[in-house]
Amino acid sequence: MPTYRAALRIQLRKQILDVQGKAVEHALHALNFTGMHNVRIGKYVELLITADSKVAAEEALRKACSQLMANPIMEDFWIDCCEEVS
Amino acid sequence: MPTYRAALRIQLRKQILDVQGKAVEHALHALNFTGMHNVRIGKYVELLITADSKVAAEEALRKACSQLMANPIMEDFWIDCCEEVS
Repeated sequence: MPTYRAALRIQLRKQILDVQGKAVEHALHALNFTGMHNVRIGKYVELLITADSKVAAEEALRKACSQLMANPIMEDFWIDCCEEVS
Repeated sequence: MPTYRAALRIQLRKQILDVQGKAVEHALHALNFTGMHNVRIGKYVELLITADSKVAAEEALRKACSQLMANPIMEDFWIDCCEEVS
């Protein structure tokens, strides 16, 4: 079966206060990076998926995100790429 | 001054064991997502930068990453995009 390299982004929904982002923003301002604002921090996950096809790999990844990797109430996720490696 | 929307990825270096990734991998296998492996979890940061030019914005972001957002000993970072929004 072919293996696919996938990457996904998980971010807090826009409506939800990102406290980690706020903390980093304050720290940036304290270090004189005053031009930086609206900092939002999410997760970036890279993984390999062995599946029958690219469609099956993406489908499995979407299911895994909904069930485990992302919190569907507070977070949105995007599958950034899913390409065959072998 | 124009504002730029920037996005950056911060990942643990390949040589360093990603314990969070390993934990997610085990949990995926426990949920029967057995085809998923080599999970590596990093950070994804989105922010707005007010700067004179795109080059200045990227330069400031690179400096901020080295000084605060990434740990240069354990992590690599990539600036994924930096585009003008206003």
